Amino acid sequence: MTIRTLVWGENVHEKMNKTVAEIYPEGMHNQIAKLLKSDSNISVKTTTLQEPEHGLTDKVLEETDVLIWWGHRAHGDVSDEVVERVAKRVWEGMGIIVLHSGHFSKIFKRLMGSPCALHWREAGERERLWVVNPGHPIAKGLPRYFELENEEMYGEPFSVPEPLETIFVSWFQGGEVFRSGLTYRKGAGNVFYFRPGHETYPTYHDETVGLVLRNAVNWAYNPNRYPELNTAPNTPVDKAIEPITARGGSLHESGEEGFR
Amino acid sequence: MTIRTLVWGENVHEKMNKTVAEIYPEGMHNQIAKLLKSDSNISVKTTTLQEPEHGLTDKVLEETDVLIWWGHRAHGDVSDEVVERVAKRVWEGMGIIVLHSGHFSKIFKRLMGSPCALHWREAGERERLWVVNPGHPIAKGLPRYFELENEEMYGEPFSVPEPLETIFVSWFQGGEVFRSGLTYRKGAGNVFYFRPGHETYPTYHDETVGLVLRNAVNWAYNPNRYPELNTAPNTPVDKAIEPITARGGSLHESGEEGFR
Amino acid sequence: MTIRTLVWGENVHEKMNKTVAEIYPEGMHNQIAKLLKSDSNISVKTTTLQEPEHGLTDKVLEETDVLIWWGHRAHGDVSDEVVERVAKRVWEGMGIIVLHSGHFSKIFKRLMGSPCALHWREAGERERLWVVNPGHPIAKGLPRYFELENEEMYGEPFSVPEPLETIFVSWFQGGEVFRSGLTYRKGAGNVFYFRPGHETYPTYHDETVGLVLRNAVNWAYNPNRYPELNTAPNTPVDKAIEPITARGGSLHESGEEGFR
Amino acid sequence: MTIRTLVWGENVHEKMNKTVAEIYPEGMHNQIAKLLKSDSNISVKTTTLQEPEHGLTDKVLEETDVLIWWGHRAHGDVSDEVVERVAKRVWEGMGIIVLHSGHFSKIFKRLMGSPCALHWREAGERERLWVVNPGHPIAKGLPRYFELENEEMYGEPFSVPEPLETIFVSWFQGGEVFRSGLTYRKGAGNVFYFRPGHETYPTYHDETVGLVLRNAVNWAYNPNRYPELNTAPNTPVDKAIEPITARGGSLHESGEEGFR
Repeated sequence: MTIRTLVWGENVHEKMNKTVAEIYPEGMHNQIAKLLKSDSNISVKTTTLQEPEHGLTDKVLEETDVLIWWGHRAHGDVSDEVVERVAKRVWEGMGIIVLHSGHFSKIFKRLMGSPCALHWREAGERERLWVVNPGHPIAKGLPRYFELENEEMYGEPFSVPEPLETIFVSWFQGGEVFRSGLTYRKGAGNVFYFRPGHETYPTYHDETVGLVLRNAVNWAYNPNRYPELNTAPNTPVDKAIEPITARGGSLHESGEEGFR
Repeated sequence: MTIRTLVWGENVHEKMNKTVAEIYPEGMHNQIAKLLKSDSNISVKTTTLQEPEHGLTDKVLEETDVLIWWGHRAHGDVSDEVVERVAKRVWEGMGIIVLHSGHFSKIFKRLMGSPCALHWREAGERERLWVVNPGHPIAKGLPRYFELENEEMYGEPFSVPEPLETIFVSWFQGGEVFRSGLTYRKGAGNVFYFRPGHETYPTYHDETVGLVLRNAVNWAYNPNRYPELNTAPNTPVDKAIEPITARGGSLHESGEEGFR
Repeated sequence: MTIRTLVWGENVHEKMNKTVAEIYPEGMHNQIAKLLKSDSNISVKTTTLQEPEHGLTDKVLEETDVLIWWGHRAHGDVSDEVVERVAKRVWEGMGIIVLHSGHFSKIFKRLMGSPCALHWREAGERERLWVVNPGHPIAKGLPRYFELENEEMYGEPFSVPEPLETIFVSWFQGGEVFRSGLTYRKGAGNVFYFRPGHETYPTYHDETVGLVLRNAVNWAYNPNRYPELNTAPNTPVDKAIEPITARGGSLHESGEEGFR
Repeated sequence: MTIRTLVWGENVHEKMNKTVAEIYPEGMHNQIAKLLKSDSNISVKTTTLQEPEHGLTDKVLEETDVLIWWGHRAHGDVSDEVVERVAKRVWEGMGIIVLHSGHFSKIFKRLMGSPCALHWREAGERERLWVVNPGHPIAKGLPRYFELENEEMYGEPFSVPEPLETIFVSWFQGGEVFRSGLTYRKGAGNVFYFRPGHETYPTYHDETVGLVLRNAVNWAYNPNRYPELNTAPNTPVDKAIEPITARGGSLHESGEEGFR
């Protein structure tokens, strides 16, 4: 029983921008998938924005344990219906790992319920990620810090909710800091945001980045689904666990659906 | 300088249901407003779903420090545009207190990014709210517990994100429990969810409930606004705090807008 | 590679109190160990207060991945030196599961840094534990709630720090509630507090309680150790990652130990 | 009714080290007190390690709303009895603000229940504190970031529990980062850790540092005390809120004290 992992790639800049195409000739999604394959617990597929329903049909999501999301230029092209479908699936227990510019993807903003903004600079500067929570499963086997010699800068404040736990904090050459690895649980779904991955630099060829992603997939994995977390059932009075008698006025007939 | 508080009422069941009309002859929103008036720090206005733009124009929100939200039957009638406007204002620093059936309001679900579901029973049973965090400002002056003799039951799991802090946990006569007071910060805005307040019972005539609401308004209040949390400005390379030189490939011209 | 789990039992009431002896003729620790044995990932040993160094020598702790702690009457008999040794080991990455009256054990109070108080009643009343966080690994495979027909009541406020996550909330027949399953990370060590387990009732013969404990052992397990989290090394100026030059006054010679 | 604030200074290096004496001729505690005086809500006193009972008698603590702690060289000279007294008072609702090298003070380690370690370098390098949580009361009125041209470096991992909220993250010239402002609630007491303040640099002459400290005192203030959070009272069976009858075996006579 492997962890069925789906890498979703926007797959736009790879085709438009020569630098990106040279670094990721097979597409970023396929290179991210490669980083996962050395973990025998993980089985990987990829899909892209351009597929029907962006490759995220109900059937595909039913067969996905952890979804990895990379998008940037075309956030607005993702259909709202697919976003709601993915969100519902996360709430039911599918894990999701959102990468880099995915901070502004519809799905991440939907799950966070906050602006998810930051300030940024594209200068190929040095980023150094410090492990602030070494005992967390996502940090397993990592050194005290690791460096990406060329990355885009993201600076605080990152307007996301206070996370369950902060795993990484980045130092940037130009003087900024950023909380680069954050965990959440939404419904039954584990959510991990991981900052690095600007498309004009070879970040997803970095072996330590690969280790983080493999750890994150293992952490985010939940074999069970909890569709009941999306429903609000009525418990009829005569089925109360401790016997009670109805009192006072009421709006609903016993067993009736609530308002949504 | 008082805390400009706006009570938003759906104002539907008060007109349709005889029981509700008898308990809240002036509307629930006006009764909630009354509970706040004994605090001289607070100035109160009310508005309802039926007003143009549901009474939540930009101008009104600009003059609001804390918004209190009660809705139930007509969640779907609130326009998406107004919901986004309110969310944006919360992220900029306006406080929001969501009451009872508002757990399924568009604005609460928008801010939580999770299903916000629960199970429920309308039997007028006894609810006892235990203060689990007595040192929190929202619990100031409260007894160890307080009771509402007739309330609707909400049962766990309440599919919301892990809160910053849990303030109340409810015991129900029929055998359930519920985390009845939860705090969040979204962007710069303080969010408090408070469970009691089913419209067929006189909950908003209860003096302890009033004290909780007054405390919550004081806690949620932030005099400042942070519109920058909704933006993602570029920092040009030549304005970096620590001098750096651009390296590697790039997508953007210096100072260009990012993708959203 | 199994999870080397050590069940620590106070082993006092089993010998003094006839009721306890009848329910746990082999000692509570051995019955708790039995609950774990059905999980082939877990290898179990037990030890007790009465052993030299309470059975918690450095060597034993080095061979322990997860420690389970049950104590009540004799908290004060546990030596401070052993408590510090266990705390240090938790910080380095050993998991710990503290049960029931262990809320007042020296090791739990040491790790929490707060009073860990509550109010209580020994009436053999019904406890119903609701799963408030069904997606958490500790809740895997559990029903929506489970009941213990006879338990001691613990009531809120439970003066512990806000947890990472709340897993269970208990309903008590006499009218109280309690956050019955709470997670923390201290240093690199995972900490789980689980409420049930009064010695005069057959709680550790309950199969659902067994499932919770097996889940908790799996969750708390970390194969690595992080002794560096207990040290505060100096980084000499000439070994700084980014080249800097010392400026201003100083207290320490380069490379000198800090004050503790 | 002002916030009765007590600044506790170790007051050792001011007397031993010429650099420190020149920067803080009246002692660091008196300079910190000066920073607070511009806030008319705050009334300030100071005391030092050298006073009887380190100036922290029961009477003094009863008259203290917020305690500020600066210590470094002489952590070990603070008596354990005084540390327990202060901790108990915090749990009852007194606020505490721990500064800089106080991360290794007995009181901070006692409250955190974790190692509180970090790595460090004394090179007078530049520290830039980024506000990651601008809506928090402690960040009120602050710019996006502020700089201290000469500070000691503290580097992650900082082995403290995950905070309620992270307020500041520091960038250091030599390449490290640090979570520089962290909030906790322990019992009913608000706890704030604030990183800057090495004694060989003029940090407590900095006006922005002063604003942070004044904000922190206002945030940490709780006018009430909750001594009940330190006690574990028995609720006799016949005083249960919901009528119950005792069942099963028992250890305690009704109303008897529990074990500690």
